[in-house]
Amino acid sequence: MKISIILAHPNPGSFNHAIAGAAADGLRQNGHAVVFHDLCQEQFPALLPASELQKDAPLEPVVARHCAEIAAADGIVIVHPNWWGMPPAILKGWIDRVLRMEVAYRFVANDKGEGVPQGLLRAKSAIVFNTANTPEDRERTIFGDPLETLWKKCIFALCGVKSVQRRTFSVVIISTPAQRAQWLTEVREIMSAHYPPEARSATTQVSNFETSLSP
Amino acid sequence: MKISIILAHPNPGSFNHAIAGAAADGLRQNGHAVVFHDLCQEQFPALLPASELQKDAPLEPVVARHCAEIAAADGIVIVHPNWWGMPPAILKGWIDRVLRMEVAYRFVANDKGEGVPQGLLRAKSAIVFNTANTPEDRERTIFGDPLETLWKKCIFALCGVKSVQRRTFSVVIISTPAQRAQWLTEVREIMSAHYPPEARSATTQVSNFETSLSP
Repeated sequence: MKISIILAHPNPGSFNHAIAGAAADGLRQNGHAVVFHDLCQEQFPALLPASELQKDAPLEPVVARHCAEIAAADGIVIVHPNWWGMPPAILKGWIDRVLRMEVAYRFVANDKGEGVPQGLLRAKSAIVFNTANTPEDRERTIFGDPLETLWKKCIFALCGVKSVQRRTFSVVIISTPAQRAQWLTEVREIMSAHYPPEARSATTQVSNFETSLSP
Repeated sequence: MKISIILAHPNPGSFNHAIAGAAADGLRQNGHAVVFHDLCQEQFPALLPASELQKDAPLEPVVARHCAEIAAADGIVIVHPNWWGMPPAILKGWIDRVLRMEVAYRFVANDKGEGVPQGLLRAKSAIVFNTANTPEDRERTIFGDPLETLWKKCIFALCGVKSVQRRTFSVVIISTPAQRAQWLTEVREIMSAHYPPEARSATTQVSNFETSLSP
């Protein structure tokens, strides 16, 4: 399968980078093709210009490439910290520019845009990994955990991605190295559960089996 | 009073611009000082760099200026379209960079960051104007209206702004000119209700009174 990983954290040494790296490793070990984007490192141009508001607007090549990739992905993995109950601005801009009309969704004929769109993404599942420094119960009871609603209902459901698993690791700032290592193991397990080894490639499977027995 | 207006829409001819303009006019007519930022037109640098993650990081002059202004504001008006249940990326970046620790909130002593912060903004009230092309009941029942939670609970409550009124104008795309004119009148009314004429300036009040009687 072809899996897109979209990572947004400005610090290359962040735990978000470790999560995205573990996800990519796990997927590759299972024989999948990984399209990996570290938006900050790549300096993704996050601000949607007025000229792009129209449905058939010409797109910057880098945006057009992101659109083609996400449309072709069999699975999507999103990794970002919880900043104000939302993704960092660069990822918000990726959503604004890449998940556009006719790429990620379409309004039905005779609808001027006020109606119910039809999802267009090919991916059947998405995984969202978040990090947070707010304890889980406080995030849910005080803030209503808006990222749960945003990713599942506002974004992926609208784009036609039916299965979305979200896992938040918290509280990162006071976590021990052992805890973080355990979280990364969990990332690999989640990847394998959703994107198991490619059945068609016997070679890959044997290779994985050997790897798992190595000391 | 000193009121900050923060506007985020890439099209200078947008209805968001009309809302922000009506809000500024109404405030000035009531004798208030308006600090007006059209983030897109000003090309606000929206992406928080890794170097700014630390509490005492040096800030770009434009970010430092925004921080000083929002800390000094007696009232805050936010204007943006609902894009994916969130603000456009440029405004998300303004939140990320400007509403920073020690400007908008502070963690109490001996708290490593996992606890409950103390709000620092001087403003007692904020008004959020949104535009949407999703009907209001669909936004609430299907998407859970995340902007309500984000602005009231995740952002302003945390920064110490206790009173937040939010008004969403929808469905903009199928609205008539008469409807939009009525919405702009409502914007002025909301401004006057929250930020009435400065009592200390008799001249301003008389001037307003005269204006209200003119044909």
